[in-house]
Amino acid sequence: MTTMTGRTFGSDNHAGVHPAVLAAIAAANAGDAVAYGDDEVTQAAVARLCAAAGARNGYLVFNGTGANVLALSMLLRPYEAVVCAESSHLNVDECGAPERILGCKLLAVPAPDGKLTLDGVAARLSGRGDEHRAQPRVLQIAQATELGTCYSLAELQRLRDFSRAHDLLIYLDGARIANAAAHLGCSLADIAACADVLSFGGTKNGALGVEAVLVMTEGLDAGAPYHRKQLLQLASKMRFLAAQVDALLEGDRWLATARHANEMASRLGSALAEVAGVRVAYPVQSNAVFTEVSRGLADRLLRDWAVELWSESADSGRRVLRWMTAFDTTADEVASVVSAVRLAAADAEA
Amino acid sequence: MTTMTGRTFGSDNHAGVHPAVLAAIAAANAGDAVAYGDDEVTQAAVARLCAAAGARNGYLVFNGTGANVLALSMLLRPYEAVVCAESSHLNVDECGAPERILGCKLLAVPAPDGKLTLDGVAARLSGRGDEHRAQPRVLQIAQATELGTCYSLAELQRLRDFSRAHDLLIYLDGARIANAAAHLGCSLADIAACADVLSFGGTKNGALGVEAVLVMTEGLDAGAPYHRKQLLQLASKMRFLAAQVDALLEGDRWLATARHANEMASRLGSALAEVAGVRVAYPVQSNAVFTEVSRGLADRLLRDWAVELWSESADSGRRVLRWMTAFDTTADEVASVVSAVRLAAADAEA
Amino acid sequence: MTTMTGRTFGSDNHAGVHPAVLAAIAAANAGDAVAYGDDEVTQAAVARLCAAAGARNGYLVFNGTGANVLALSMLLRPYEAVVCAESSHLNVDECGAPERILGCKLLAVPAPDGKLTLDGVAARLSGRGDEHRAQPRVLQIAQATELGTCYSLAELQRLRDFSRAHDLLIYLDGARIANAAAHLGCSLADIAACADVLSFGGTKNGALGVEAVLVMTEGLDAGAPYHRKQLLQLASKMRFLAAQVDALLEGDRWLATARHANEMASRLGSALAEVAGVRVAYPVQSNAVFTEVSRGLADRLLRDWAVELWSESADSGRRVLRWMTAFDTTADEVASVVSAVRLAAADAEA
Amino acid sequence: MTTMTGRTFGSDNHAGVHPAVLAAIAAANAGDAVAYGDDEVTQAAVARLCAAAGARNGYLVFNGTGANVLALSMLLRPYEAVVCAESSHLNVDECGAPERILGCKLLAVPAPDGKLTLDGVAARLSGRGDEHRAQPRVLQIAQATELGTCYSLAELQRLRDFSRAHDLLIYLDGARIANAAAHLGCSLADIAACADVLSFGGTKNGALGVEAVLVMTEGLDAGAPYHRKQLLQLASKMRFLAAQVDALLEGDRWLATARHANEMASRLGSALAEVAGVRVAYPVQSNAVFTEVSRGLADRLLRDWAVELWSESADSGRRVLRWMTAFDTTADEVASVVSAVRLAAADAEA
Repeated sequence: MTTMTGRTFGSDNHAGVHPAVLAAIAAANAGDAVAYGDDEVTQAAVARLCAAAGARNGYLVFNGTGANVLALSMLLRPYEAVVCAESSHLNVDECGAPERILGCKLLAVPAPDGKLTLDGVAARLSGRGDEHRAQPRVLQIAQATELGTCYSLAELQRLRDFSRAHDLLIYLDGARIANAAAHLGCSLADIAACADVLSFGGTKNGALGVEAVLVMTEGLDAGAPYHRKQLLQLASKMRFLAAQVDALLEGDRWLATARHANEMASRLGSALAEVAGVRVAYPVQSNAVFTEVSRGLADRLLRDWAVELWSESADSGRRVLRWMTAFDTTADEVASVVSAVRLAAADAEA
Repeated sequence: MTTMTGRTFGSDNHAGVHPAVLAAIAAANAGDAVAYGDDEVTQAAVARLCAAAGARNGYLVFNGTGANVLALSMLLRPYEAVVCAESSHLNVDECGAPERILGCKLLAVPAPDGKLTLDGVAARLSGRGDEHRAQPRVLQIAQATELGTCYSLAELQRLRDFSRAHDLLIYLDGARIANAAAHLGCSLADIAACADVLSFGGTKNGALGVEAVLVMTEGLDAGAPYHRKQLLQLASKMRFLAAQVDALLEGDRWLATARHANEMASRLGSALAEVAGVRVAYPVQSNAVFTEVSRGLADRLLRDWAVELWSESADSGRRVLRWMTAFDTTADEVASVVSAVRLAAADAEA
Repeated sequence: MTTMTGRTFGSDNHAGVHPAVLAAIAAANAGDAVAYGDDEVTQAAVARLCAAAGARNGYLVFNGTGANVLALSMLLRPYEAVVCAESSHLNVDECGAPERILGCKLLAVPAPDGKLTLDGVAARLSGRGDEHRAQPRVLQIAQATELGTCYSLAELQRLRDFSRAHDLLIYLDGARIANAAAHLGCSLADIAACADVLSFGGTKNGALGVEAVLVMTEGLDAGAPYHRKQLLQLASKMRFLAAQVDALLEGDRWLATARHANEMASRLGSALAEVAGVRVAYPVQSNAVFTEVSRGLADRLLRDWAVELWSESADSGRRVLRWMTAFDTTADEVASVVSAVRLAAADAEA
Repeated sequence: MTTMTGRTFGSDNHAGVHPAVLAAIAAANAGDAVAYGDDEVTQAAVARLCAAAGARNGYLVFNGTGANVLALSMLLRPYEAVVCAESSHLNVDECGAPERILGCKLLAVPAPDGKLTLDGVAARLSGRGDEHRAQPRVLQIAQATELGTCYSLAELQRLRDFSRAHDLLIYLDGARIANAAAHLGCSLADIAACADVLSFGGTKNGALGVEAVLVMTEGLDAGAPYHRKQLLQLASKMRFLAAQVDALLEGDRWLATARHANEMASRLGSALAEVAGVRVAYPVQSNAVFTEVSRGLADRLLRDWAVELWSESADSGRRVLRWMTAFDTTADEVASVVSAVRLAAADAEA
């Protein structure tokens, strides 16, 4: 167990729950409601979310892994494969859940800044029609990506066109779709439009724990209720998941919280870029800042902060650390961590 | 969507959240906490629950299906089977999740009152050592059972002895273990002692949504953290699951809420047993009452109440309805539903 | 290891290979042929078999389990279930392969003589549309059944009509379809007509080792080549599987061999029925004879013969043994085993 | 369908069956034998093969995919991963069978000549102990590799030492282990010694269709009979698989056939290396020759020969073709194909 006090910058999952979300949960706690989503709170929240995304249907689930696997279960037959970025959460951080639960093969593509390229995807389509090869069927992208970058709407449109031309479906992992919308200054629907199925993340953006799988394309979710149940993602007291979604949608709170987190990350990134011995590794386009530092500085920072050691160069020994902001990170906290890094960097240089 | 006002008697999942549970969630919402359970709230709540059950280790998950599948994933190799009651939730109400997710075969045994018998289990062990047969490995029981009955502690001990003698492991589905402990007047540890792994249900007993998988026998849970992640059951903001468990354990609240629900069911069962045309189908030993009524009366009651149509006799057409009480059911509500049933029964007879 | 000399009557799998099948394998061994079925021998044999069955397409596989699982993989989505007889090979003798490999639930129906009834099937369809229940999708029947009985063509037609009316697909396990055709005096196509997908068994009928999955209904086998590969059933030197099929089809050899095996079983059954202490348990309609005898006689016979102990009454202790004939069983061998049983029965009575 | 006459050089799977193998099958066809391997022919052949490899136990299966998946099923828990070469058959040519059937993740490592390096493997072990990562457990190597190269015995020993030091098990895919033994001039046991489990390939080396999974390390195969049955790999008339193994072992025929195939590949490689416009891409150390040629020459050769287009440079457009020899390839056939390539190359240059 790691004991932490104060802000960790370790993950947007380290943050707590937005007060408005807690209040919505409490408000939903009034008498009986039919279980498993057949209640008014759930129906209303899902409808509201679908309207915001331009989606045909939505399914609330417990967490991001659940959203990813449920979404893919709608899109894949047993012999089909998912083309995804090598750095994708799906490939790296799900403990092999897609393989175990869906039995599918992931065809991982190098994507230096976390974003798939058309060439990279195209190179993975060569085995089409060969019974010895898992058949590429889904193009999986994250928006924002795991490296804190965002696809532009034009880039999304190109992926969309490519997928249509090559008989691929697009699943967009939107665990941080709010941060992407805030960065791009666009609507949820603007991003969702490129996808056949997407997830809408609540947990990293102020919810207690809820994600939604949104279906854009007709005919994909006939079996979704059964998949959700089998995949251990059917909440009995569903209204309390729905209330969270509703609180996030209310007055576009989801966008405001994400905009704030992005702004804090932007400040953090700009300030850290000025620190000697620290290089900001990727464009700061959401609520993540990746810093490349020496091994010694990394060790010092990892001792003091619960940030994530993202990667390490086998050659130079330089390490990349991930710093994340959240809906409730304050400007003072950013200033404080920057001072601390500056101090540590000076020590490390000395 | 079914719109319901007032008490439904349809399920203990229709009830809301106990105020103390909501308060505990709010209290846990203080600043950052490391995600995925590596925080103080979680560590303390799990330790407290393990102490109460005499368990070696515990894993919090989202729901009952998750608990069932995670528990079995610790106990089964791919070619092993689970002996369970035909009426078990595992066999009937999980949409085939154990088969899909674990690939295991369920060897279902007739169990008229929901309780396995040694003879019934023994009859399923004949294929041992035959490579053409899935190998029985786990004995799965529910306490309380899906029919509202409870194994006595002596019965549990006999199942335990049998399982030891026949190289079986016991998984106890404790979605309603609190109601069983309240009925038997025993401790959590008294029931847990018969099992190798069990679940402790929170959701049906006043929680917002949390279950725990408790490990009694050494050496079974080496891979449990990976299983939980793969099975889509690893909560990022785990403290909010843990806070619920803590609130239930505080002052044995879990036992008080279950005792109340049982008492309401007992009243309901006694009163319904007096109604002409209504037969109480199983002993009322937890928070469920099953009534066997004519098809006509059943139709009327199903129209007015969100209770569950449990089964139907192909011959007589008589139907069994399930009525459930919860931690917040009141004596007035019981009296009210009894009146309504009495009226409906009189109409149906007329 | 069991050392056996002479005829075992234990299984049609104990028999060897028909000389014509061996000759066909040798004849196919001429120079190179493209692997994985893209060769002339395979194309011709599959076309010939499809023509005989009225099938749209066919896929050769290694064994009966492979055929069963490949067939079902074409018909099921992950949340769908198979209605089958409790006594079906699929349910009893596949070591849980359908559950492990396909993740599907089997909904087993009591079928005293091995044949499903419409009422039995109908009782399993109640959970349709309920997300908590695996959804019945396939009706699985064996022809001939595992108990040596056969559905009449009229019975098959009724199952067909029922399945169409209830949105079910039929998979017919034809491991002994030849014996059924011989018994009914009908063509392969007559039986196949009731199925959406069926298997055609070669191995139990004189082949070295080959089964075919035949697709009757359009649109079911788009993914079949991938399924076959993934299910470990794609033979590299496919021509040698195909040559076996061709040898069986040549001059309707498959029917002649099955007719002979049936005739030997008929003789055996008639003779054993005359032995005091022996009861023939099921109608002899293919190449199997089931005898119910006392425990003492069973022990004696199991000592002397490699026949299968099929079942045992918990109450009476009486046991059912299975005797099987094959394409190469001789009338003398039948006479000899009958004499031996008569002798053993007399001893047991004494 | 591709119609071919004469030698294809497309695959060792295009070759037929060695006459001695056919003769052994015919010799095994004498009367009844108990099915599923409980017969004398099988017991003897497996014992003989285990003795040759120094293995504790062996399991016969139908094909290479079956051997790969069965072997891995003995070594993996659901959350464990396999480190393998990017170019491995397991990763590329099994249609995702390991993922679908075992649910495991493959951690593919770049291996330019088909051989894993210790550094490459080490780079994949970073996620150990992190519940978000599939846990590396098996190191999978092919000997000979898919690129026709062989690990030296010293290299195998280093992999063995590394695996022991890093808590990994080694599975050696021996689909062409005979060619490796012939190349290294060593025994089967010399190669097998590095592995915990390995496969012994028969099909590509003159058998009709049989592979064996050999277990070197105690305690790994307790469940193997059940895995084999579930994985659709249990042959009923097993003696006919065993007879093939026996014929290959008789007088070290397996080594003689592989030595011949290697010798033919060596001649082919030497001769093709002399052709202008042809580059031999990898060392010829077994029965495969890979030639890199221009796109134009590749198209011409692919039109005339059933050889495999192995890869293509996105930049240069140059293509690599795979030519394979077999136990029955003749020196005249090699000379003939060399002439043809020479002619085509001259045309392409012109």
